[in-house]
Amino acid sequence: MAASATISKTIYLGPFVHSKSLAELEICENGAIGVDENGIITFVEKNIQSTDTLISQKPEWQNAKVVKILNNGFFFPGFIDTHVHAPQHPNTGLFGKTTLLDWLQTYTFPMESSFSDLQRANRIYQNFVSRTLSHGTTTAAYYATIHVPATNLLADTCLKRGQRALVGRVCMNSNLSPEYYRDASTESSVRDSKASIAYIRSIDPTGEIVKPIITPRFAPSCTSDCLSAISQLAKNADTHIQTHISENKNECALVKELFPDSTSYTDVYDSHGLLTPKMILAHAVHLSREERDVIKARGSKISHCPASNTAITSGCCPVRTLLDEGHTVGLGTDVSGGFHPSILENVRQAIWVSRHLSIETGAESDKLSTEEALYLSTRGGAAVVGLESKVGGFEVGMEWDAQMIDLGEVDEQGNGGSFGGPVDVFGWESWGEKIEKWVYSGDDRNTVAVWVRGRLVHRTGRFAGSQG
Amino acid sequence: MAASATISKTIYLGPFVHSKSLAELEICENGAIGVDENGIITFVEKNIQSTDTLISQKPEWQNAKVVKILNNGFFFPGFIDTHVHAPQHPNTGLFGKTTLLDWLQTYTFPMESSFSDLQRANRIYQNFVSRTLSHGTTTAAYYATIHVPATNLLADTCLKRGQRALVGRVCMNSNLSPEYYRDASTESSVRDSKASIAYIRSIDPTGEIVKPIITPRFAPSCTSDCLSAISQLAKNADTHIQTHISENKNECALVKELFPDSTSYTDVYDSHGLLTPKMILAHAVHLSREERDVIKARGSKISHCPASNTAITSGCCPVRTLLDEGHTVGLGTDVSGGFHPSILENVRQAIWVSRHLSIETGAESDKLSTEEALYLSTRGGAAVVGLESKVGGFEVGMEWDAQMIDLGEVDEQGNGGSFGGPVDVFGWESWGEKIEKWVYSGDDRNTVAVWVRGRLVHRTGRFAGSQG
Repeated sequence: MAASATISKTIYLGPFVHSKSLAELEICENGAIGVDENGIITFVEKNIQSTDTLISQKPEWQNAKVVKILNNGFFFPGFIDTHVHAPQHPNTGLFGKTTLLDWLQTYTFPMESSFSDLQRANRIYQNFVSRTLSHGTTTAAYYATIHVPATNLLADTCLKRGQRALVGRVCMNSNLSPEYYRDASTESSVRDSKASIAYIRSIDPTGEIVKPIITPRFAPSCTSDCLSAISQLAKNADTHIQTHISENKNECALVKELFPDSTSYTDVYDSHGLLTPKMILAHAVHLSREERDVIKARGSKISHCPASNTAITSGCCPVRTLLDEGHTVGLGTDVSGGFHPSILENVRQAIWVSRHLSIETGAESDKLSTEEALYLSTRGGAAVVGLESKVGGFEVGMEWDAQMIDLGEVDEQGNGGSFGGPVDVFGWESWGEKIEKWVYSGDDRNTVAVWVRGRLVHRTGRFAGSQG
Repeated sequence: MAASATISKTIYLGPFVHSKSLAELEICENGAIGVDENGIITFVEKNIQSTDTLISQKPEWQNAKVVKILNNGFFFPGFIDTHVHAPQHPNTGLFGKTTLLDWLQTYTFPMESSFSDLQRANRIYQNFVSRTLSHGTTTAAYYATIHVPATNLLADTCLKRGQRALVGRVCMNSNLSPEYYRDASTESSVRDSKASIAYIRSIDPTGEIVKPIITPRFAPSCTSDCLSAISQLAKNADTHIQTHISENKNECALVKELFPDSTSYTDVYDSHGLLTPKMILAHAVHLSREERDVIKARGSKISHCPASNTAITSGCCPVRTLLDEGHTVGLGTDVSGGFHPSILENVRQAIWVSRHLSIETGAESDKLSTEEALYLSTRGGAAVVGLESKVGGFEVGMEWDAQMIDLGEVDEQGNGGSFGGPVDVFGWESWGEKIEKWVYSGDDRNTVAVWVRGRLVHRTGRFAGSQG
């Protein structure tokens, strides 16, 4: 029952930046955003003259706390990680030259199976939630493991630390998985999933911070029988669902072999009733146009995981094409297929993947812009997890899920100063250029504070100086 | 006349890691490396029993200083950046959707031309040399600008800070460059290059730390007349040479148009006598097999710049093919076509580029391994700049150009501890896995100390604890 830390009515003062649309970033240099005791944005002023003028117009905010951007900084919406395997974090950076199917057997299943040990699970989950918060991730769609106690522990951890999360116990009952790490039967798969859903709903009944999500690993991990039962459970329990689709060519061939009656990988999920508007499909690299049309017609969402797709050589997701076709797309770190827990790294990787596609096709239109990639990391991701009315941008009525970005500055002698951050701002840059410097050379050092629903959930030493 | 800071005879104690060959990394857990007052490696012990035993066998080292790895750390050779434009650093991260030729006009020429202002040049060069040292770059092949005073200042800065550097005044006299930023004539191009060579040789007569390098920007920037004169100068002055080759398809077409008598881009340089064993060719993305054979026959070297090639959509350099053909290859950040001043980032980017090639070709053999990429960043780069007998690895007679890597550790509660580094080591990782974690999620925070020729040239607060 955490997440109840007292929140003061606060004015966030200074530049803020968020996506106005897929193509356009809005930069308000003289901004002021009022957030109430419930973490709800009450006013958004885009061009204030002075704090005094602001207060004279809003006398009820006279005694509010003020959190102020000092210089070369701005508020930015918290990142949404739409696909991430928390228990795989100890393998972050370990993948060698494997591709999906041997990567699962070599690295993933042995690691995940160890989460039967709850003390070990606690160490890793504490570490990983700290790590993702430090990278500005305010919402994550987590895959846990097959273990109910460890899955519940992940939900407890997110709730306590104040990170919004969809937390899913992984369903996997087929013999693709080794005997030491799979659900014993369809019945146990459903029973354990139900138990975890019930627990997560008991600790956060409103689901404001943590929610359950039904998580069939991917088609080859589940029998047809299990997929049907899980699908029924998702309907009965009215939950989100997450799975993988069309990540790797060998995987696609395997699905064809395992589900000979289905016309496509997409049809496997569709024919089992899993393609709902609450379904998050990770990867979507090798889908045909027909499959994409079905996904769009069903209103299912797509999580693009560029770092993972590059690292384990899965392929290039045609993300600009998906956007042109009107899909709802967000970004996923896919730790540990993805080698980095940061969504900012995945903003860059999404751009690199799109450029590699452009190199191959010669089409300028395959290139994702900085603005578009930032949209995917915030508003796009929010829409993928069904929170587009609450988070991903700064508007009245939305909730204060935000990060304070601080870029520091280079002094006249060329020193970056005591800050030690990775970005060099000389002072002549436009606001658009400052944001590009953050995107292309910034990291967690620049994320000096992070809030979820108005609650401060992460801060660095650099934040101390900016509280009024 | 700097670089003369007093160096104590020092034993570097603890794990060290370096490339044994392109394919193999040598990891010595119980290492001890003795470095004398001149920065020369005097002994390399790969498996010591204890410090006492070591000293009993080497009594003359009894009073030597000891620098010790504390835990989850290791010594690694300094990185070699074989292609980097120091004056472009204020544009790091700024490139938008441009490709080479419009990128030059939009971002690069305006920035470089401002280096006529020496105070501005000083601020930027101080900043950038600090920045590259902090990323473990112990040797860099720098392009400066056309300005003699600012080029000389860059050489002064490297010498003072102790970073090995080849520093080149850029030659560019053709009308590809705007009137406000080009050499006035072939004569002035040669005269200014000579002046800068003479100055750099005057401040470091042995060339141990800084050396001049003749730098015709690239074929389209120079008239044929100028290329011939520059080539003659390189022979007379016996210097290294650096330029760009075959980076972008539009550039290749332009070269064909500008040099109709040459049979290829490579032939432009070859026919002007520039393809010597002291030539460093950056990019080499779109070369034909015939061109690569000429380059190999001439003994010229290749700087692979993966981050740049991806960011400005130049293409995928077939680096595994180059290695199979026996080319000498190193890595270059190519700041600011490249979006990051770190060679470690370019180790990763080289791997990503090779995987994108593999995705396209389906060939497993296109994939660069972690070990191969690390080789390119150290021994490969050393061979590109002609320093393979001095730096890039740890052997008796070589010089102590090294970085101390510290990965920190995750405690039992899951905290990364006070260190705040980007890597999470839980304690069960093998040494190979620790190195992979460093490569794929590490950054400058893990580089806690850097030495060139035995001189400490960079350190972070984290280093304080490790001096015995």
